[in-house]
Amino acid sequence: MLKNLKMIKTFINKNQIEELEKQKRVHLINSLGGFKSVSLVGTSDENGNENLAIFSSFFHIGANPPLIGLIFRPSPPERDTMRNILDTGFFTVNHINESIYKHAHQTSARYEKGISEFHVTGLKSEYKNGFHAPFVAESNIQLGVEFKEKIDISINSTTMIIGEITQIYIPENCLLDDGFIDLEKANTITCSGLDSYHKTIQLDRLSYAKPDKEITSLL
Amino acid sequence: MLKNLKMIKTFINKNQIEELEKQKRVHLINSLGGFKSVSLVGTSDENGNENLAIFSSFFHIGANPPLIGLIFRPSPPERDTMRNILDTGFFTVNHINESIYKHAHQTSARYEKGISEFHVTGLKSEYKNGFHAPFVAESNIQLGVEFKEKIDISINSTTMIIGEITQIYIPENCLLDDGFIDLEKANTITCSGLDSYHKTIQLDRLSYAKPDKEITSLL
Repeated sequence: MLKNLKMIKTFINKNQIEELEKQKRVHLINSLGGFKSVSLVGTSDENGNENLAIFSSFFHIGANPPLIGLIFRPSPPERDTMRNILDTGFFTVNHINESIYKHAHQTSARYEKGISEFHVTGLKSEYKNGFHAPFVAESNIQLGVEFKEKIDISINSTTMIIGEITQIYIPENCLLDDGFIDLEKANTITCSGLDSYHKTIQLDRLSYAKPDKEITSLL
Repeated sequence: MLKNLKMIKTFINKNQIEELEKQKRVHLINSLGGFKSVSLVGTSDENGNENLAIFSSFFHIGANPPLIGLIFRPSPPERDTMRNILDTGFFTVNHINESIYKHAHQTSARYEKGISEFHVTGLKSEYKNGFHAPFVAESNIQLGVEFKEKIDISINSTTMIIGEITQIYIPENCLLDDGFIDLEKANTITCSGLDSYHKTIQLDRLSYAKPDKEITSLL
């Protein structure tokens, strides 16, 4: 039997969601998505002007080829990160750790055109192995990503950008023999809602599930 | 200045990614996505046969209307969850907590057609407020979602399903005045890679970022 400490629940229906005050709805709906990957997306324009932006909408699309997706809110206003990706074809995804999450959060401020978030936050850009876009030097897990496809989501005028991971940088002591990365050892953190940051404690790694077979711990 | 305990990094390039043994690549690429929301998606077919499946590819698309996305791997084999969503128009998303993550993981086993993952795992289905699809009774945060749109991602033959959240159930003591949900109080957990589960410790909630203004803690 399951141990179930049942919590008393509040029910919010469709009409009540629609009638919520705007900022409250934004916090609520963003919280419902659970814990999310959060990362810094680095780009530069064709003249080398750098841009850095925090994203919590980065998700896995497939392993072969290695594809990820990002959701962009409607334009206008112009989205510098998206424009740079479309103009140059490249971006970086940099995991956020406990030392830099406040700097990362600060990149969400609306700076004037021409101001680099690297400059104002003090995060350091890093170029390597011929990749066009800047990596975040303080990030322990860094991905170089090539633009592959843009899909317009007409229902709410957002845009999905799909990219292929072509460069991977990971701390050498965090990569396990079976390909799994120990993200806790790499100090990667997670977020919830719009503004809450969390570190993690591993509960377990579980064996591949099969019918009629007990799951075991891989640790 | 940033405190930066620099880790020695391994570089994996595009050719090396392509040459990785398949299972190792799957673990690696799934790990790169960072910590992810993980939830149980409940559906039933037109005859009321229930299905329950674990997903770690659930992401926020927008708050107004409240939209979420899910990525499905290529068919065939037939994806019961997707077929039920397309046939009935409804599904539930149920957050996973520490008491049920092993049961949740077990739903990823390939059961024969006609076998309900509710039955084999012992998780209890729950119907309420006229919603067609089954909720997971042991889940503390439950969402009723209406199908809105199907987008085929041709680049790797996956499918994105977009749904609108129309029913929300949350523990009454977890909802803050500003709309933020305290997911830790609701015992929601996160996952990494294909098989690793983690609980969280909140570092901070940060104020809305503005240029030339110091970020403060909201706690």
